[in-house]
Amino acid sequence: MQQVSIKKNIELLKKLSLDMYEKDFLLTWEKSFDEVQATILVAEALKEMHRTNISTRIFDSGLGISIFKDNSTRTKFSFASAVNALGLAVQDFDEKKSQIAHGETVRETANMVSFTADVIGIRDDMYLGEGDRYQREVSEAVQYGYDKGILHQRPTLVNLQSDIDHPTQSMSDLAKLKDYFGGFENLKGKKIAMTWAYSPSYGKPLSVPQGVIGLMSRFGMDVTLAYPEGYDLIPEVVEVAKKNAAASGGKFEIVHSMDEAFKDAHVVYPKSWAPYWVMQKRTDLLRSGDHKGLEELEKQALANNAKHTDWECTEENMKLTQNGAALYQHCLPADITGLSCKQGEVVRSVFDRYIPDTYHQASFKPFVIMAMILLGKVSNPAQKLEELITKGIKRQY
Amino acid sequence: MQQVSIKKNIELLKKLSLDMYEKDFLLTWEKSFDEVQATILVAEALKEMHRTNISTRIFDSGLGISIFKDNSTRTKFSFASAVNALGLAVQDFDEKKSQIAHGETVRETANMVSFTADVIGIRDDMYLGEGDRYQREVSEAVQYGYDKGILHQRPTLVNLQSDIDHPTQSMSDLAKLKDYFGGFENLKGKKIAMTWAYSPSYGKPLSVPQGVIGLMSRFGMDVTLAYPEGYDLIPEVVEVAKKNAAASGGKFEIVHSMDEAFKDAHVVYPKSWAPYWVMQKRTDLLRSGDHKGLEELEKQALANNAKHTDWECTEENMKLTQNGAALYQHCLPADITGLSCKQGEVVRSVFDRYIPDTYHQASFKPFVIMAMILLGKVSNPAQKLEELITKGIKRQY
Amino acid sequence: MQQVSIKKNIELLKKLSLDMYEKDFLLTWEKSFDEVQATILVAEALKEMHRTNISTRIFDSGLGISIFKDNSTRTKFSFASAVNALGLAVQDFDEKKSQIAHGETVRETANMVSFTADVIGIRDDMYLGEGDRYQREVSEAVQYGYDKGILHQRPTLVNLQSDIDHPTQSMSDLAKLKDYFGGFENLKGKKIAMTWAYSPSYGKPLSVPQGVIGLMSRFGMDVTLAYPEGYDLIPEVVEVAKKNAAASGGKFEIVHSMDEAFKDAHVVYPKSWAPYWVMQKRTDLLRSGDHKGLEELEKQALANNAKHTDWECTEENMKLTQNGAALYQHCLPADITGLSCKQGEVVRSVFDRYIPDTYHQASFKPFVIMAMILLGKVSNPAQKLEELITKGIKRQY
Repeated sequence: MQQVSIKKNIELLKKLSLDMYEKDFLLTWEKSFDEVQATILVAEALKEMHRTNISTRIFDSGLGISIFKDNSTRTKFSFASAVNALGLAVQDFDEKKSQIAHGETVRETANMVSFTADVIGIRDDMYLGEGDRYQREVSEAVQYGYDKGILHQRPTLVNLQSDIDHPTQSMSDLAKLKDYFGGFENLKGKKIAMTWAYSPSYGKPLSVPQGVIGLMSRFGMDVTLAYPEGYDLIPEVVEVAKKNAAASGGKFEIVHSMDEAFKDAHVVYPKSWAPYWVMQKRTDLLRSGDHKGLEELEKQALANNAKHTDWECTEENMKLTQNGAALYQHCLPADITGLSCKQGEVVRSVFDRYIPDTYHQASFKPFVIMAMILLGKVSNPAQKLEELITKGIKRQY
Repeated sequence: MQQVSIKKNIELLKKLSLDMYEKDFLLTWEKSFDEVQATILVAEALKEMHRTNISTRIFDSGLGISIFKDNSTRTKFSFASAVNALGLAVQDFDEKKSQIAHGETVRETANMVSFTADVIGIRDDMYLGEGDRYQREVSEAVQYGYDKGILHQRPTLVNLQSDIDHPTQSMSDLAKLKDYFGGFENLKGKKIAMTWAYSPSYGKPLSVPQGVIGLMSRFGMDVTLAYPEGYDLIPEVVEVAKKNAAASGGKFEIVHSMDEAFKDAHVVYPKSWAPYWVMQKRTDLLRSGDHKGLEELEKQALANNAKHTDWECTEENMKLTQNGAALYQHCLPADITGLSCKQGEVVRSVFDRYIPDTYHQASFKPFVIMAMILLGKVSNPAQKLEELITKGIKRQY
Repeated sequence: MQQVSIKKNIELLKKLSLDMYEKDFLLTWEKSFDEVQATILVAEALKEMHRTNISTRIFDSGLGISIFKDNSTRTKFSFASAVNALGLAVQDFDEKKSQIAHGETVRETANMVSFTADVIGIRDDMYLGEGDRYQREVSEAVQYGYDKGILHQRPTLVNLQSDIDHPTQSMSDLAKLKDYFGGFENLKGKKIAMTWAYSPSYGKPLSVPQGVIGLMSRFGMDVTLAYPEGYDLIPEVVEVAKKNAAASGGKFEIVHSMDEAFKDAHVVYPKSWAPYWVMQKRTDLLRSGDHKGLEELEKQALANNAKHTDWECTEENMKLTQNGAALYQHCLPADITGLSCKQGEVVRSVFDRYIPDTYHQASFKPFVIMAMILLGKVSNPAQKLEELITKGIKRQY
């Protein structure tokens, strides 16, 4: 791990042009390149402050609302950690998981829970066309309440995973890559293989691979997306990645062979997902309440998956990577062959070798979320960080 | 919205005679007129402090316990907001919803959870004869523990809705009326129509209309309670409203026509509830475990409701009100015709026109709860507010 | 109740030799005699600070994770109280109750939730051979993360009840005994009857009686364990108690008559538990998924229990105790004959007479947990307590 200098990060932060105050963080590609970098710089600074026992509280009181429409332990804890370290209390909003609310219901509820809320974190990744849409409805709802003087503050929304993007994950992945290669500038030209891998489970969201190709393509990386024919991602996001790569001087290509993707890769990210058309059909069937159709679809999807059990990260294909020693990334938990399932995304020996790395990768998430919140709540983040350092209140007294 | 002067509220507060320290807030009509006013004044001051980013913490640590025997999102969040803004942490007590505990079980549990609790908020509104009784048992239980030296502090109870009253709601309604008409003194002579309205659902509690007639009748208002024959409220509460009206120089009458109630009203509050005798029978059937009887009762009650679908707040009957422009109040969520149900309490155009008002009405609740707690925990509330202002710690640093 | 002098406790604390910093608290018999005493001294001091409204916060922010694999209200609230009073926020980890996870799954999850966690409290008491083992796996997992630099702090584990010991309970029982007899030194020679009692329920954990005999035997007490033939505790723990008694100059004996145990006892602790062999067989059946076998076992165990309804604490056998007035202890809730069940552990008149005592006994638990955490997180606890007193920040301002 690299040594982080809080002061250096603050100096770099000062040079960036930001428009994040009172804004949400929903998709990384809605943020400027400066804003993406700022988020990482602030996250690193906050992480270093936590490590060196300096308080990161910017609130005396206030609520951080979590809305999880999908089960989650890790992201829930990361959000709780972030909210707490800033001085807020978490309050869970338990909407029924399958409930797809719109319009006045969303507007009213969002306002009713937000009278003292400073941030709202939402995970809604299960249904294509729903997650991101719901987050935008909540965002408009609290903007309405704020404009009408009902809410005293404009809660910042943080996307904790939608159907489109998983920015708190991809930004953590990025933070790990920056640390691993020693700076944003060193990402240029590095090959990352974001590749599908076999899993015995069904309906894994697309937001992780989409988040990775949509973000890493901005840093001049050589992004290779690999999957068996038919396992496409949302076309609009693939377009985003293509444009990003063109703009950043990187590369983006799609291949249908894991070996080809792994060839000379500096980073591999083997991870299962459900095909785009399956997720879309699933949403349609759910909307029409076709339970028999849903069962059929699951059967069919699992049968399709079963044809691709050879899409597995092994000692053999790891040898194809740069010096046979690419960094293995995963958002965790992984499907580990012979450990968490009979046949999965990765063999145990590879997974085990990279445990300190995948843990380290995950360890950025609470601080990435903190950074997203801080940048939405504070008009001059560099000054705020300097204030915190100068005050130097200890986290543990 | 009126501009609130914190200093003016504190000056008014100083003139009032209060006996609220180490007391609970269960029913508004157990509180003196001064105490009711004090609660609103403190709530307004705390709301203004929150708006202007002044910390309202009076606790360094401590717990606020929430006991919800009925599902709730909005009241739960209001309680969480209040507790957090005072410096406490919420701890939910998940008693089984249908469980009707008494005696030693209540006493023991209440003490076991209260060793570091400063406030207990209870919502128990489902069974007539149970909710208020349960709250009083908990109150006696913690008094016992305090008297015996087991509890270091006497937790203040706040009624978050019982079978009899819903004081955090009615006090929020009152705060809105005070703001709307520009002062307590301006409520005198204003007509409020608290009227039943049709809803396709069953078993809605009586505490909202009871709370409204029991409270607004103290301010010299012309309180008209309207419902179809048979949809009576608890007789004792109706008596309270009658006495209050007589004492305050207001009026209280019961009519059986929505139009008659709306006629020249300054405020309308159309809201469904279940008849008193249905709620009573329901409790009896529950106690005897008669599930068949319960189903029969529900069927019968819904059939009765269905005879009164014309009890709906419409553009037509709104025209009957004062200048055709009465303030529409609702505790939310409302049953909105064509939006949340096929046929409901209010037509969409009326509901939509008053959205900023109903949201504003709801926005008082966290601060009303905070005021109730503060008045129960602080012996000199005016001085405490002055201290907070003088210290001037920012809520967001 | 005795008056506690915080200063005196701090002076006594300074004389003790401790190695508790960055260590867990899993079993009392893994702690030295000095460490056990230190925990009580710190708990008493923190309790007195709470009583006299002095802040006990040593954290500005941070999380306290609770993992409850068994339902709990009281211990959950005690943990929440402790964590909050130290300045941390509780975050519940909801693992499926019956899930028995091991190895990498435990290691990964423990690290993923602990990035900002200062303490982890675990209750896992249902399956013999599992609870303590799980706690040690979590402990090793976070040690691994800490050693690798993934975790910035080493979360302290507190055993909130395992299959082997229930240290937060037994230490609370001990604190009550110290208060009742006026000092550790006065426990010498006092007879405590830890005795089985009849309960109509099945599968009560062994950790309470095991905790009591494993702890009180260290203070020179005359510990008598009584149960009907066949209701043995874990043999290894009985060995611990025997050795402790020998070392402390106390006594430890096992009898099979409640009357014999009560004879001249200064303290009685009548409490039901399931026999060791039943708990072991239950774990085996669960592991093999033998649901029919489990039902059979429950039937058999309840039938066995039913033979011993005469093992009840009554006015009659209370007369056998020292001056007929032994202290009655119970971890609560008790099975009270004619109140919480038809036939139970204790008659109502005895239970009622000792309510202030059993409540007082329970009131130590939040402060015992606080002490365990503080001693794990602070290198010089005496100095830290002095700092808190000197600063003298009020808990309620």
